[in-house]
Amino acid sequence: MKKSLIAMAVLAAAGAASAQSSVQLYGIADVWVGAQKIGAAKAQTVVESGGVDASRFGLKGSEDLGGGLKAIFTLEQGFNLDTGAQATAGQAFSREASVGVAGNFGTVKLGKVWTAYDDVQNASNPVFDSALTPSAGAFATTAAATGYLANPANGIKYTSPSFAGVTGIVSYALDENTAGNAEVSALAVQYANGPLAAAVAYQNQQAVGFVNSIEFTNLNASYNLGVVTLKGSYAQRDNNNGIKDKEYQLGVDYPLASNLILSAGYASSENKDKGVKQSDNSGLGLAAAYLLSKRTTAYAGVRSTKLDHVNAAIADVTTNVYAVGVKHAF
Amino acid sequence: MKKSLIAMAVLAAAGAASAQSSVQLYGIADVWVGAQKIGAAKAQTVVESGGVDASRFGLKGSEDLGGGLKAIFTLEQGFNLDTGAQATAGQAFSREASVGVAGNFGTVKLGKVWTAYDDVQNASNPVFDSALTPSAGAFATTAAATGYLANPANGIKYTSPSFAGVTGIVSYALDENTAGNAEVSALAVQYANGPLAAAVAYQNQQAVGFVNSIEFTNLNASYNLGVVTLKGSYAQRDNNNGIKDKEYQLGVDYPLASNLILSAGYASSENKDKGVKQSDNSGLGLAAAYLLSKRTTAYAGVRSTKLDHVNAAIADVTTNVYAVGVKHAF
Amino acid sequence: MKKSLIAMAVLAAAGAASAQSSVQLYGIADVWVGAQKIGAAKAQTVVESGGVDASRFGLKGSEDLGGGLKAIFTLEQGFNLDTGAQATAGQAFSREASVGVAGNFGTVKLGKVWTAYDDVQNASNPVFDSALTPSAGAFATTAAATGYLANPANGIKYTSPSFAGVTGIVSYALDENTAGNAEVSALAVQYANGPLAAAVAYQNQQAVGFVNSIEFTNLNASYNLGVVTLKGSYAQRDNNNGIKDKEYQLGVDYPLASNLILSAGYASSENKDKGVKQSDNSGLGLAAAYLLSKRTTAYAGVRSTKLDHVNAAIADVTTNVYAVGVKHAF
Repeated sequence: MKKSLIAMAVLAAAGAASAQSSVQLYGIADVWVGAQKIGAAKAQTVVESGGVDASRFGLKGSEDLGGGLKAIFTLEQGFNLDTGAQATAGQAFSREASVGVAGNFGTVKLGKVWTAYDDVQNASNPVFDSALTPSAGAFATTAAATGYLANPANGIKYTSPSFAGVTGIVSYALDENTAGNAEVSALAVQYANGPLAAAVAYQNQQAVGFVNSIEFTNLNASYNLGVVTLKGSYAQRDNNNGIKDKEYQLGVDYPLASNLILSAGYASSENKDKGVKQSDNSGLGLAAAYLLSKRTTAYAGVRSTKLDHVNAAIADVTTNVYAVGVKHAF
Repeated sequence: MKKSLIAMAVLAAAGAASAQSSVQLYGIADVWVGAQKIGAAKAQTVVESGGVDASRFGLKGSEDLGGGLKAIFTLEQGFNLDTGAQATAGQAFSREASVGVAGNFGTVKLGKVWTAYDDVQNASNPVFDSALTPSAGAFATTAAATGYLANPANGIKYTSPSFAGVTGIVSYALDENTAGNAEVSALAVQYANGPLAAAVAYQNQQAVGFVNSIEFTNLNASYNLGVVTLKGSYAQRDNNNGIKDKEYQLGVDYPLASNLILSAGYASSENKDKGVKQSDNSGLGLAAAYLLSKRTTAYAGVRSTKLDHVNAAIADVTTNVYAVGVKHAF
Repeated sequence: MKKSLIAMAVLAAAGAASAQSSVQLYGIADVWVGAQKIGAAKAQTVVESGGVDASRFGLKGSEDLGGGLKAIFTLEQGFNLDTGAQATAGQAFSREASVGVAGNFGTVKLGKVWTAYDDVQNASNPVFDSALTPSAGAFATTAAATGYLANPANGIKYTSPSFAGVTGIVSYALDENTAGNAEVSALAVQYANGPLAAAVAYQNQQAVGFVNSIEFTNLNASYNLGVVTLKGSYAQRDNNNGIKDKEYQLGVDYPLASNLILSAGYASSENKDKGVKQSDNSGLGLAAAYLLSKRTTAYAGVRSTKLDHVNAAIADVTTNVYAVGVKHAF
């Protein structure tokens, strides 16, 4: 499709110059082998994708606009290394698709972007914020199954520069008055200076056609004592219809050597409906990460969680996962 | 899947040498924020992909074959920057997937390629041939909704070299006698020399199992007067069953500075069934494009179109779009 | 999604270093034009993808881990050059998605990988192991339609180094106790030294919920006499429920020049149910490959096969294919 010839003077020049650009191709290939048993289901020996980080590949780049400004873009697709499947069917870039401008004022991005809440909520997770972290899949504040939206479409996001270790992030995703979409507003403040890192975040999701919004709140911090680093977080979900979750997680990272870290964590959550407890979730995770090189890490560990229903008629579910894996960044 | 060992002498050598190749990774990330109101539907605030150009990424490259010949390939995927979705579900390369040979004789391509008609039909569109160009989505000769095929599968295409500013293009797409496919023949002649650019194009689509073919004809030209550039086009669609569309568009590009262009356009179309008018479509578009750098352009504008039905029982539809966006090429 | 800050010391360092990596982008664009007639269906003139090799693109790379070890990854997607479609809907990398370690001990890969059987079964196919090879699509030991699994999900694979020309390969794919999956075990030994190349392979597929496994066995060899290279293979499929296939193929490669090879082959197969013959398949293929450059090959040829049913009530199917194409590797 050719463009109007005169507009080329402005617009197409942009295209013509692309031969000079340098696009960075990057990604993570993360796979683990292990055993898992979920509730009454038969134990499985599995090969799975994304033990520590979701497998992904992406294109990114930037262009100097002068005056301290630069144009930036990120296109990042998630996939499952064990099956080759797209992480989300029909998506070209399921993780991020954005273009923006960065400068002294901070960074503005437009497109499909991670919310401000998602940027910080897992920052103090123990056990490498991995599939072995006890909160993995168990916390209502993080799981897509409970309606949490990590990177909704139609987003606008601003990240401030760091002032004395403090960074602010605001994101907003439009619902476009379209069924199936939600208006997602999120705000986060992050602090990182010396041994202390801390963050607080809030997210509000108002789905089109629904009366009640869903609210998420998260507080987390980690403190490096030298020998070990302590980690903790507290989060809650409020569906504004009586359903509420409260969750916390504690853990510790223990570096045995410059390239070997042990990490352990405990997580617990509670689900209530109009003040009446429905279920408890709690669990432990323990793992070791061994840095083989700059870009390759081996890991091994175990996670054991239990979902305990107050109603005895609903079966409790115990999940045990044993994993050995490798994460390779490129 | 290993190949026969001896055939390697010829065939696999091709593969082995790939380490020496330089593939170019390129694309466009184009996003806009704005408001749109379509007919009686509620006004929407939106983040949308592709205000000026459809967002895309691609791989392309070439290899010298000696004797002035080179092998070329293009693999180009469309996606929506606002959602991360594939532009067309299930497509790896929805825009182009081709391999070919180029030389003094011109260029031959095989695969999924843009038709000769599509190559030139929008060449004199005002308002940067964008989502703000008044013909956008309104002209039956360009809209997929009316059956127009821009890049059908199973294509063969020849583009001549330029002789004194004249280029000829012929494309043909096979239907493979398969339901859902169409035999698409197209021809275009383009002229560009000095201040004048002009093109004429014809496309014939014969869908498998249908009696009537659909014919598209397009004439367009632009003339650079120095201060402004005038633009115009005329097109028609004939379904050969009584349904005909006639469309024209006029516009002007007005460069305010070397990096700032204003453009305005007016478009009108008329749909008839067996000579009886069914509807009129007309509209205006106005936008400014500001070149931030070689590869990044900011733009802003408005488009207002009205679909007017002769039958008073069918509601007329007025569409208003206001947009501010950025296009980044990489 | 930010990761815990301390774990960064080990894990995120991997990500941060990715800017130093060099990912190789590679692929094959292979397209042919021709005529085919299958049984009583109308003859078709076609543009098709993958005459010699399936069209594909991929990312691969490696990282030195020290001590003679390196981390490796391969992400490879199949697509159809004639339509732009994904080779398999919903797959990001339909051909291979793997990460592994290579060293003096050989190579270990995890993920979606080609089975050991698939690595060698076509190694002595005449007619460039192409769409014109007579076994193409006709042999039950290679066709997906008969349940053969070339690259199942959840795989683990070991390839030995070469000892005096002998390489061993073992692969295993887990079924994860999941309906639709199969446990696929495969073993292959390959020999290549001087004029002789030979391989033997076995694959066992046990689908979840099925009583009988399916077994595939393959023997193939080629011998370079200087003037010509002789090629042959024998294979069988046993569904362990009475259904068995026996197949063989013979052929010869005849280099006319350093950049031009003729190849011809004959293939025959027999399908039995509890010892009673159900059908015969046989056919001829003949093609020439002309090396235009290091990475580009032109080819032309013909394939004619006949599926002959013992039961006269079932129509026999004759397939004739004439093709001219080009394969470009990048």
